[in-house]
Amino acid sequence: GYARVDTHRGVRTGDPEVVFAAGKTAAETVGIVAALRAASTGDGRPTLVTRANRETVDALVARWPDADVTGRWSPDPAADPRPAGDAGRLATVAVGALPPARGRVVVVCAGTSDAPVADEAALTVAASGAGVEVLRDVGVAGLHRLLAVRDVLAAADCLVVVAGMEGALPSVIGGLVGVPLVAVPTSVGYGAAFGGLAALLGMLTACAPGIAVCNIDNGFGAGLFAARVARA
Amino acid sequence: GYARVDTHRGVRTGDPEVVFAAGKTAAETVGIVAALRAASTGDGRPTLVTRANRETVDALVARWPDADVTGRWSPDPAADPRPAGDAGRLATVAVGALPPARGRVVVVCAGTSDAPVADEAALTVAASGAGVEVLRDVGVAGLHRLLAVRDVLAAADCLVVVAGMEGALPSVIGGLVGVPLVAVPTSVGYGAAFGGLAALLGMLTACAPGIAVCNIDNGFGAGLFAARVARA
Amino acid sequence: GYARVDTHRGVRTGDPEVVFAAGKTAAETVGIVAALRAASTGDGRPTLVTRANRETVDALVARWPDADVTGRWSPDPAADPRPAGDAGRLATVAVGALPPARGRVVVVCAGTSDAPVADEAALTVAASGAGVEVLRDVGVAGLHRLLAVRDVLAAADCLVVVAGMEGALPSVIGGLVGVPLVAVPTSVGYGAAFGGLAALLGMLTACAPGIAVCNIDNGFGAGLFAARVARA
Amino acid sequence: GYARVDTHRGVRTGDPEVVFAAGKTAAETVGIVAALRAASTGDGRPTLVTRANRETVDALVARWPDADVTGRWSPDPAADPRPAGDAGRLATVAVGALPPARGRVVVVCAGTSDAPVADEAALTVAASGAGVEVLRDVGVAGLHRLLAVRDVLAAADCLVVVAGMEGALPSVIGGLVGVPLVAVPTSVGYGAAFGGLAALLGMLTACAPGIAVCNIDNGFGAGLFAARVARA
Amino acid sequence: GYARVDTHRGVRTGDPEVVFAAGKTAAETVGIVAALRAASTGDGRPTLVTRANRETVDALVARWPDADVTGRWSPDPAADPRPAGDAGRLATVAVGALPPARGRVVVVCAGTSDAPVADEAALTVAASGAGVEVLRDVGVAGLHRLLAVRDVLAAADCLVVVAGMEGALPSVIGGLVGVPLVAVPTSVGYGAAFGGLAALLGMLTACAPGIAVCNIDNGFGAGLFAARVARA
Amino acid sequence: GYARVDTHRGVRTGDPEVVFAAGKTAAETVGIVAALRAASTGDGRPTLVTRANRETVDALVARWPDADVTGRWSPDPAADPRPAGDAGRLATVAVGALPPARGRVVVVCAGTSDAPVADEAALTVAASGAGVEVLRDVGVAGLHRLLAVRDVLAAADCLVVVAGMEGALPSVIGGLVGVPLVAVPTSVGYGAAFGGLAALLGMLTACAPGIAVCNIDNGFGAGLFAARVARA
Amino acid sequence: GYARVDTHRGVRTGDPEVVFAAGKTAAETVGIVAALRAASTGDGRPTLVTRANRETVDALVARWPDADVTGRWSPDPAADPRPAGDAGRLATVAVGALPPARGRVVVVCAGTSDAPVADEAALTVAASGAGVEVLRDVGVAGLHRLLAVRDVLAAADCLVVVAGMEGALPSVIGGLVGVPLVAVPTSVGYGAAFGGLAALLGMLTACAPGIAVCNIDNGFGAGLFAARVARA
Amino acid sequence: GYARVDTHRGVRTGDPEVVFAAGKTAAETVGIVAALRAASTGDGRPTLVTRANRETVDALVARWPDADVTGRWSPDPAADPRPAGDAGRLATVAVGALPPARGRVVVVCAGTSDAPVADEAALTVAASGAGVEVLRDVGVAGLHRLLAVRDVLAAADCLVVVAGMEGALPSVIGGLVGVPLVAVPTSVGYGAAFGGLAALLGMLTACAPGIAVCNIDNGFGAGLFAARVARA
Ligand SMILES: Nc1ncnc2c1ncn2[C@@H]1O[C@H](COP(=O)(O)O)[C@@H](O)[C@H]1O
Ligand SMILES: Nc1ncnc2c1ncn2[C@@H]1O[C@H](COP(=O)(O)O)[C@@H](O)[C@H]1O
Ligand SMILES: Nc1ncnc2c1ncn2[C@@H]1O[C@H](COP(=O)(O)O)[C@@H](O)[C@H]1O
Ligand SMILES: Nc1ncnc2c1ncn2[C@@H]1O[C@H](COP(=O)(O)O)[C@@H](O)[C@H]1O
Ligand SMILES: [Mg+2]
Ligand SMILES: [Mg+2]
Ligand SMILES: [Mg+2]
Ligand SMILES: [Mg+2]
Ligand SMILES: [Mg+2]
Ligand SMILES: [Mg+2]
Ligand SMILES: [Mg+2]
Ligand SMILES: [Mg+2]
Repeated sequence: GYARVDTHRGVRTGDPEVVFAAGKTAAETVGIVAALRAASTGDGRPTLVTRANRETVDALVARWPDADVTGRWSPDPAADPRPAGDAGRLATVAVGALPPARGRVVVVCAGTSDAPVADEAALTVAASGAGVEVLRDVGVAGLHRLLAVRDVLAAADCLVVVAGMEGALPSVIGGLVGVPLVAVPTSVGYGAAFGGLAALLGMLTACAPGIAVCNIDNGFGAGLFAARVARA
Repeated sequence: GYARVDTHRGVRTGDPEVVFAAGKTAAETVGIVAALRAASTGDGRPTLVTRANRETVDALVARWPDADVTGRWSPDPAADPRPAGDAGRLATVAVGALPPARGRVVVVCAGTSDAPVADEAALTVAASGAGVEVLRDVGVAGLHRLLAVRDVLAAADCLVVVAGMEGALPSVIGGLVGVPLVAVPTSVGYGAAFGGLAALLGMLTACAPGIAVCNIDNGFGAGLFAARVARA
Repeated sequence: GYARVDTHRGVRTGDPEVVFAAGKTAAETVGIVAALRAASTGDGRPTLVTRANRETVDALVARWPDADVTGRWSPDPAADPRPAGDAGRLATVAVGALPPARGRVVVVCAGTSDAPVADEAALTVAASGAGVEVLRDVGVAGLHRLLAVRDVLAAADCLVVVAGMEGALPSVIGGLVGVPLVAVPTSVGYGAAFGGLAALLGMLTACAPGIAVCNIDNGFGAGLFAARVARA
Repeated sequence: GYARVDTHRGVRTGDPEVVFAAGKTAAETVGIVAALRAASTGDGRPTLVTRANRETVDALVARWPDADVTGRWSPDPAADPRPAGDAGRLATVAVGALPPARGRVVVVCAGTSDAPVADEAALTVAASGAGVEVLRDVGVAGLHRLLAVRDVLAAADCLVVVAGMEGALPSVIGGLVGVPLVAVPTSVGYGAAFGGLAALLGMLTACAPGIAVCNIDNGFGAGLFAARVARA
Repeated sequence: GYARVDTHRGVRTGDPEVVFAAGKTAAETVGIVAALRAASTGDGRPTLVTRANRETVDALVARWPDADVTGRWSPDPAADPRPAGDAGRLATVAVGALPPARGRVVVVCAGTSDAPVADEAALTVAASGAGVEVLRDVGVAGLHRLLAVRDVLAAADCLVVVAGMEGALPSVIGGLVGVPLVAVPTSVGYGAAFGGLAALLGMLTACAPGIAVCNIDNGFGAGLFAARVARA
Repeated sequence: GYARVDTHRGVRTGDPEVVFAAGKTAAETVGIVAALRAASTGDGRPTLVTRANRETVDALVARWPDADVTGRWSPDPAADPRPAGDAGRLATVAVGALPPARGRVVVVCAGTSDAPVADEAALTVAASGAGVEVLRDVGVAGLHRLLAVRDVLAAADCLVVVAGMEGALPSVIGGLVGVPLVAVPTSVGYGAAFGGLAALLGMLTACAPGIAVCNIDNGFGAGLFAARVARA
Repeated sequence: GYARVDTHRGVRTGDPEVVFAAGKTAAETVGIVAALRAASTGDGRPTLVTRANRETVDALVARWPDADVTGRWSPDPAADPRPAGDAGRLATVAVGALPPARGRVVVVCAGTSDAPVADEAALTVAASGAGVEVLRDVGVAGLHRLLAVRDVLAAADCLVVVAGMEGALPSVIGGLVGVPLVAVPTSVGYGAAFGGLAALLGMLTACAPGIAVCNIDNGFGAGLFAARVARA
Repeated sequence: GYARVDTHRGVRTGDPEVVFAAGKTAAETVGIVAALRAASTGDGRPTLVTRANRETVDALVARWPDADVTGRWSPDPAADPRPAGDAGRLATVAVGALPPARGRVVVVCAGTSDAPVADEAALTVAASGAGVEVLRDVGVAGLHRLLAVRDVLAAADCLVVVAGMEGALPSVIGGLVGVPLVAVPTSVGYGAAFGGLAALLGMLTACAPGIAVCNIDNGFGAGLFAARVARA
């Protein structure tokens, strides 16, 4: 009785309903996911849960042991997992098998601290049926790292660029390549970063054209947007 | 000695004084409620306590076991209670029997996470002597759920519309029906939601007319306002 | 070709579409009003135009000489008109005869400078089919003026309370009477008034219950809301 | 000597450099456009000038009489031009012939006052080599107008959704169709609209997924982004 | 070595240096107080410590058992102490005997939750050598409580008016009496109260004249200011 | 009919009603002043008009040629008047003879550009029956100028300290003398001064005690407050 | 009588007092400059006037025909002057001969619209006795222009980097060279640029180290700071 | 795999990469420092870690027992260490021997609570190869303490001035001496200090020239900037 989930969204928009775990108990989230899994049988798409705390992640994994969780899952299956000590960070979870991939999204990440948001974007892309690669630690303060990957960037169908603090990375990449670029400010920083506001304003006013912006820390929204562009 | 409660407010305005529990100890709140109950005998209206934490709820229920508490109480007595795991959420408590109802308020709620605010509005309506129904999970991203309840909305004396994040629900409902609509932004969201500011500004600038707005998370204020309109 | 007006709104909501003149040329506004007048024949309601500058007012009055214009029109036909020197202030215009009135709204106004917003509210109430009275200059700094009109306030079906600067008037009236109260902050003030923000925040957080708030300077929205409540 | 224009940008990103006329004299802007035209001969793309005031528009049209100017140019050549009275609004100008179109962008516009931004987006799409259609006046307060064009929206390669005030239109469209959607808040509104801030925050926090946002009034950026997606 | 206290301030300004305990350890604060006590012997004024947490209060009382602590100390020695359950609230502590009083300050307090700030103001007044009385729970929503104490207000040398939420109390008192009035906004409230910002802006823009404002929750500053006025 | 002036304020508070000219026409302001002059005969106090533009000043002086106007009037009758070229600045006007002075207020002013606000404060003090002296151009960047006037500051009954940009002057003066100090931030500055916000926040958080603050550019409020303190 | 200029500042700090022309009449500014010129004879430094409008510039040049004015003066005497059409922009003026230069400052400027601020910085450097070069139009969206001047940047004693919109240029330059870098945000931009706030926050939170920031549009402050570093 | 550190930064800019520990686990930070130490062998510079919590400090000291930690390390080796009770404060850690010093930076600190930021600046200066001295507790409210150290200030190559609350200290020092001054606002304060915003705005708009500003609490950035100036 406490929720009436939108089980038709996949039909209308091609992408199924997603669960926003913040402000819900672990039990509520598990209940909603179960309802969506029951309704979605057969469309080949996993159910995503975003902004889950440790307790909710554990409850989901207990019920669906094959679920993919950000920080543990990587687009490159051969890659090392991130260290286990990720307590306190919110995670995104995909319940159900990942679909086959069409097109290619590249997720670019300015600093180590921005990784959870980049990971959310990458898992969302994969869960939405597009291919994905992640380039880490290519911030503007070390331009050589960025210039070294220019061809990878130019070959993508869509870019997701994740950066905190001043969020200058999209400005620089936007001047290098003509690929549609979705920018995601993060809340990494302190003082005048104001919880991601500095990066958000910077990305919105970037003088390089062809940049559109998602909410602070919203790797999910950027990943879904980019998958739609890449899949087309 | 630490408080001088306004025991005449019911006479002046028709609605008795309400206790704001935030920033008070459980003992202080119980003491103030006891003073108001003593003074209000005979007017048939319960005493409301808003924004109570778990400790204060427990102290109130220990003293007045019949008290109604949001999350447990529902306007539909046959409905399932919400899951028990609501620790950490602030609650609203009505001490004393609910009065008979005049008129009909419909409370509409965009998402599951907004439920505590919608519940506060509903319990306040009931405690203020008007009838109330709650429609949940009818956000704008799934318009069919909204169009399906259009007749229920149009038949109400007053609407309370509760939404977080971008708070677009009042704009859409305000274009569908001509019933007075009190909008309540919630603090659900993150990043550029800025603790409810995005929803608040959106509701204040809604281009559909006939909308008035209460403070972020203020289900109490909206419920009292709507009850006054519906009771008239 | 430049606009597709919503001629069905009156059917859906009981109140016809209203024209927002800011950002439109006088010619565009006249064109839209003409289209709405053509479509609305027979429903007995005038067409409202809000936030019109002098040029647009003149163009509307040239075309519809009987139009009512805020600052010249008063709910009390025997009252003196305001002095002619209102250049620079935005006006609201009603094209078409005012309908018969049901119920009673009282518009209360803190200071002389808030008058244009109070006048917009009053004309909107009258154009929406409710009765209206305006009480001027009853700010909180002179409480005796307010206490002298308490019975008039208590007898209304709905109040519209208009105030700039710190916007304290709704707090005080809300503690005196139990009538539904729609508060309208105005942009009157300077410095830390921040264009109406101080009054807006003050009204949203008013500790007296039963107050709902409209946008800064939005006499139109408050008037329509109040008329719906009073007409019921 | 006063500028060193980026004549290589077309080679790097596929879209040539664009001139931001705000804060430049008409003579400076004409000089920069002349330099870009000289350098860009043969790539078949016009030179865009954004945020030009009347004086700059006149200077550009005097020099390049075939230039396309927002408000006069329309994607549908058979359409009526907008009324002449557009003084005071900033315009966007394309100097040089429009290229052939690949793919299809649909620009959606909430209100009449948002038209200049929608027009900027449309002309930018056309100048960037994609097809474009404009749907006007389909705000959320009149949902039937929106539902009537749902198939047109679903058939587009990319949507540009332009709205001021509370900016709720992208939330509703994002729940109806699965097309990539670029949202553009406008500065239309007053009071708590805070020059487009309300719409900006609302679009960033929209609970419908697949939405990315450009700067307030930035039809140019949204148009270029959408053309890149549609052309692909 | 970690601090160089300003032991001459009493000579220059008549009021000795005060310790701001926030951001200092209990040991640091005790050390600084000891240094000031050593230097100030003989001037008959206690040393004040503001914004002390429980741990710091306990350390101070352990060292100086006669210290006065807000919430336990009252200007009326016959009054009941506030309930003990004040954990979590910051306290102000006066180490040393209170001096004889000259003149009379009245501290007025809107609601029960504002009491800690009012208590800080009252203890500061007493420690600064002026007489003080506290009037509690006289918020604007219950005007009769305010009118009942008008003569007490008019007889004071200076008023300190403490209020959270919308902070309207100074506006009303400022229209009733001509006594210099120092307003103190508190952080009591939620949502659009924005941690005291609503009350602060409201007090700064109050239309009643003769009001000056101190920082949010700054009972200390207001008390010292008022004592200087009253002592003169 | 357009205003109901508060002719009893002088009786209640000792200071008569003041006219806020912003947002009123010259004719309206003259009308209100005439009504107040008629009602106030015999109390020996002039009528103040604040924030008057050139047109309103001229209308007032045409009607009352002996009126005192800021920029022309000085507390030292032998002083040179300020240069005539004060167009564009708002003025304060006192209609009626200045009363005899009790006590002494010193107005201190950081920079030349802050002079209009300091002048408003000084004329208000004089019109409210206290003595006044103005010290100009003693900003913190030239400390020697400040130290040179320390004895004048220490001998005052109350100080009014006016400063724009970062507003540091009250912090420094508050550490030098123990006189009650009313700080007035001005809107002088640019960029991060944000129209006086930087100075306002700085004054509110000044670490020197005994400082209370008035609204940005509110020389009137500070002057009236200081006169009440000095007169006592 | 209306100003008491700080004629000792040159002695104390090595740099003479500067006149802030905003909010002063042309006559007042000329009067203050004349007083400073009279007092400063012999120290070999010109008097600077900042933020002067056209009327003030004309009055200064009429009195001191050899004065240097931003937009006309260039560090490279062989360079073309900027086009004459600079009406509406504020200018900086140096009255008196420029001193010999020690050390070298490079001013870098992102876009053509930022030129007035860069020019203010350059003229201030020259007037303060350091050498200066200006590099224009090297924004981050065209990285090749920046890499081409890397050696010039690395050879400077101090950099002044001027940028509007998102202000990303200091981040990129700060990662390329280890020279002390003073960043100046400008008010160029619109919408979420919020008058320079986006650039300001971006520069403050830049992840490249060795960056310090001046106020929005404050070319003067940055130029003086850089000259002090370079001269040393 | 989780980070790709910028090991070339020392070559490009003269100062090696620094680790921002906030948002990283202790294990991640130790891993990154180890990688940087391995790559930097031989350049004689320690590796800095900023904003480390207690857990991360302990992990770093366990691995590199000779590391210098703010609060324990002092530029004057004979000085007393700060009391041990610094739990909860973020620390800065230097791994590796401090290099020989060139030039002299003086760090000035307004209050005891600002000490952690001043300590971060001082350790950064030392780690970057410049000499450093710290002057504590010289706030503007006690001017004599400041005037007593004027010669020390004037003899420095660069100043770092650290202050919270209203942040007035740079304004006063900037008027006393002509040394380049880097101002650092701190988050010390409450209410209208808004987490350091008041101090930040005050420092940016300081009317004393020659001041540049770093982010709130960014002692690291200021220290590195000052070391570059002093070393030159
Ligand atoms: N002053 C006003 N404040 C808020 N909304 C308004 C106002 N005037 C008109 N509106 C709304 O704005 C819509 C008209 O926008 P438009 O189509 O641009 O004329 C109408 O549907 C009205 O409901
Ligand atoms: N410059 C000013 N700043 C603040 N309040 C003012 C000012 N001038 C007049 N007032 C107050 O505003 C009220 C007048 O408002 P009104 O009735 O609109 O003229 C008076 O009661 C004054 O106390
Ligand atoms: N453009 C500017 N930005 C910041 N401060 C300035 C500027 N121009 C002048 N100043 C400072 O402002 C003071 C002048 O203020 P005033 O006495 O009003 O002319 C001088 O001491 C300068 O240091
Ligand atoms: N406290 C600090 N404040 C500002 N920037 C910092 C700070 N500490 C480190 N940095 C910068 O942030 C970058 C490190 O980010 P990350 O790769 O996430 O560790 C370094 O290149 C430093 O220049
Ligand atoms: Mg890094
Ligand atoms: Mg849902
Ligand atoms: Mg009045
Ligand atoms: Mg419309
Ligand atoms: Mg109460
Ligand atoms: Mg000066
Ligand atoms: Mg350019
Ligand atoms: Mg101290």
